[in-house]
Amino acid sequence: MTETHDAVEVISAKRDGGTLTRSQIDWVVDAYTRGVVADEQMSALAMAILLNGMDRREIAEWTAAMIASGERMDFSGLSRPTADKHSTGGVGDKITLPLAPLVAACGVAVPQLSGRGLGHTGGTLDKLESIPGWRANLANEELMEQLESVGAVVCAAGDGLAPADRKLYALRDVTGTVEAIPLIASSIMSKKIAEGTGALVLDVKVGTGAFMKDAARARELAEVMVALGTDAGVKTVALLTDMSTPLGNTAGNAIEVAESVEVLAGGGPADVVELTLALAREMLAAAGREDVDPADRLADGSAMDSWKAMIRAQGGDPEASLPVARESHVVTAESDGVLTRLDALAVGVAAWRLGAGRERKEDPVQAGAGVVWHARPGEAVTAGQPLLTLLTDTPERFDRALAALDGGYDVAAPGTTHDPTPLVIDKVS
Amino acid sequence: MTETHDAVEVISAKRDGGTLTRSQIDWVVDAYTRGVVADEQMSALAMAILLNGMDRREIAEWTAAMIASGERMDFSGLSRPTADKHSTGGVGDKITLPLAPLVAACGVAVPQLSGRGLGHTGGTLDKLESIPGWRANLANEELMEQLESVGAVVCAAGDGLAPADRKLYALRDVTGTVEAIPLIASSIMSKKIAEGTGALVLDVKVGTGAFMKDAARARELAEVMVALGTDAGVKTVALLTDMSTPLGNTAGNAIEVAESVEVLAGGGPADVVELTLALAREMLAAAGREDVDPADRLADGSAMDSWKAMIRAQGGDPEASLPVARESHVVTAESDGVLTRLDALAVGVAAWRLGAGRERKEDPVQAGAGVVWHARPGEAVTAGQPLLTLLTDTPERFDRALAALDGGYDVAAPGTTHDPTPLVIDKVS
Repeated sequence: MTETHDAVEVISAKRDGGTLTRSQIDWVVDAYTRGVVADEQMSALAMAILLNGMDRREIAEWTAAMIASGERMDFSGLSRPTADKHSTGGVGDKITLPLAPLVAACGVAVPQLSGRGLGHTGGTLDKLESIPGWRANLANEELMEQLESVGAVVCAAGDGLAPADRKLYALRDVTGTVEAIPLIASSIMSKKIAEGTGALVLDVKVGTGAFMKDAARARELAEVMVALGTDAGVKTVALLTDMSTPLGNTAGNAIEVAESVEVLAGGGPADVVELTLALAREMLAAAGREDVDPADRLADGSAMDSWKAMIRAQGGDPEASLPVARESHVVTAESDGVLTRLDALAVGVAAWRLGAGRERKEDPVQAGAGVVWHARPGEAVTAGQPLLTLLTDTPERFDRALAALDGGYDVAAPGTTHDPTPLVIDKVS
Repeated sequence: MTETHDAVEVISAKRDGGTLTRSQIDWVVDAYTRGVVADEQMSALAMAILLNGMDRREIAEWTAAMIASGERMDFSGLSRPTADKHSTGGVGDKITLPLAPLVAACGVAVPQLSGRGLGHTGGTLDKLESIPGWRANLANEELMEQLESVGAVVCAAGDGLAPADRKLYALRDVTGTVEAIPLIASSIMSKKIAEGTGALVLDVKVGTGAFMKDAARARELAEVMVALGTDAGVKTVALLTDMSTPLGNTAGNAIEVAESVEVLAGGGPADVVELTLALAREMLAAAGREDVDPADRLADGSAMDSWKAMIRAQGGDPEASLPVARESHVVTAESDGVLTRLDALAVGVAAWRLGAGRERKEDPVQAGAGVVWHARPGEAVTAGQPLLTLLTDTPERFDRALAALDGGYDVAAPGTTHDPTPLVIDKVS
């Protein structure tokens, strides 16, 4: 990096609808990481990127510059191939929990470096931390050793990976610049490429409970990310999946762990099983192991064995009782009928307000809090039956959670037919 | 202001192409002034405003919110009407210097609260500070007393006027968000309305040396500002004037004072006299004194008397010798011909680099530095005659100044005809 630029020059170029040069991108990302470009300059640039866009070359170079801001991991010394999965975030999305040990049980190592939840979508680490003793932070050597011995790791991403992204993500969060496809794609992919996985399957959510509300933007995001991964030598595919209805029957922390364990035990909600297997097949194919059928490994208990080993390796007790919320509140059906809609965003916001998620990134979460739904769209309900159970340690939260659920579901006349949305909408590769 | 908003909500509304409500505007301007909305949030909002615009209602409410952030002055107790002039900034634009005392000599008080130069356009206060003893800072009582006794004041705007604008202007300067018409118009007009002038004439510059390079945008800016002033009860008109060629024969500090004194003495460059009289007539008409012909007051010496009184009232000695640069460098004509172009931006940047302007707002300026041109577009030149004289105390600056002038003027074959651009292009009222 020999050429020096000026922040106003770079901002103005994007503001005026131009494309940034490689040299401008390298400079501005590096200078921002070092604090030479100030937050107020980067937020103006982020807004200009959001409104004026970036072409594929710019996005690739921006991603490369974010990767170059930190360390890169290397799993090429492992005895088996690696594959990771990233979800853009949904409600009741506990898929990582059964998926990582399942894929490991199929002979492909899963190095999943995760984040925490912010807003109405839950965080994988928050869910796992409801297991007594389990810890999210691993040193790089522990991570490598566990990948070799157990084959699956879900842990916190270290500070060394793409530090530019960490700083930029926090800035975007408070400046209304989260919703820019170039910045979303480069944020996700810089971390995943730096992480060193050999293959990557993206679960790009579409619907009310997702970050992307419409399929066209979700597809665009998927295409950009697949291209970024492929260009960086990571075998990358994306599934577009529905997030208008929450996944499974639970949204929270401990209650999602329990549901995940049901899936690993061969049961669990049909949609969670379907999506877990669909993503597992993509990960195996991307890692060159399409010969293995993951359904067999659920059936024969080997996925459950991997789960227990994975939890134990990080200090957790997979047999321990999970925390239970101190208070509950049941919402019942007012009349006989058919549940025709259960809105993912409404459920997600309710679980968040009950304490399953955090308002600020320094807040703790409640392990037992969340929402359980007792019917899924298409199912008949009878007057007075429980529809939803709200769980929290702090009952003063019920009112705000109930307010979030107001208008969040529809019960139609008995006999009404319901066309379910397909769970897996499309594949981008 | 009872309603509370959230910075991301306000930013997102403008980002998504919406209009901001009065309540959102009042909140965000006030919260930014108090430091509740952070710089990185305001810069993202400024970029969204730049790219998505604001309608007239939003601009008026934004301007009102900036005025409400500070004090308002009131000249209604003066024995004569008030009129002020604001120029959007040009090269060699010393018009305020002869204009303020000229209008005062016509019976209309001129309360001109000015800023300092930044970039290639000079600052009126920097020019006046080259007069030995003259001081820019006046208490409000001194300002009022001088307006009554002398009739003209050119001084620094106090910290109490539109503090939101001061903070926002500094932010826009480093974040590539200066060029937004809603923000330019509200910045200028909030200060002028808070200043309390009864009438206002805007000199909106158009051309290479101006902030607005094209007439359509300059006209739009003029229309927005005239509407803002009129709605606030200030009689406001705007002239669109040419800034493709610098004004007069000098760009600098002391050398522009000397040229202004020539005008007050009844001489001086024709274009400076023309624009001074045109603006004076507009100010007098806006203040209800169209019966007075300012040309008479130049001819009879009363404008010069007002100048001397104005300078003395602020501690300056109007008879003192002005500072002279220590070093000079002459650029001569290479061939016989006609000067067909002298670019305002090239001259402005050269004067700036010679030390007449500042790189950073805390830098000092050189009183004697600048550029003198010995021919104006349309005039014949002969090989070897001086075209430009560069002045500075620090001769190591000559090279960068000469580089700025490279390509900044054209000498065509002898006898080439030259169509001069009219100085006053249009009037908006």
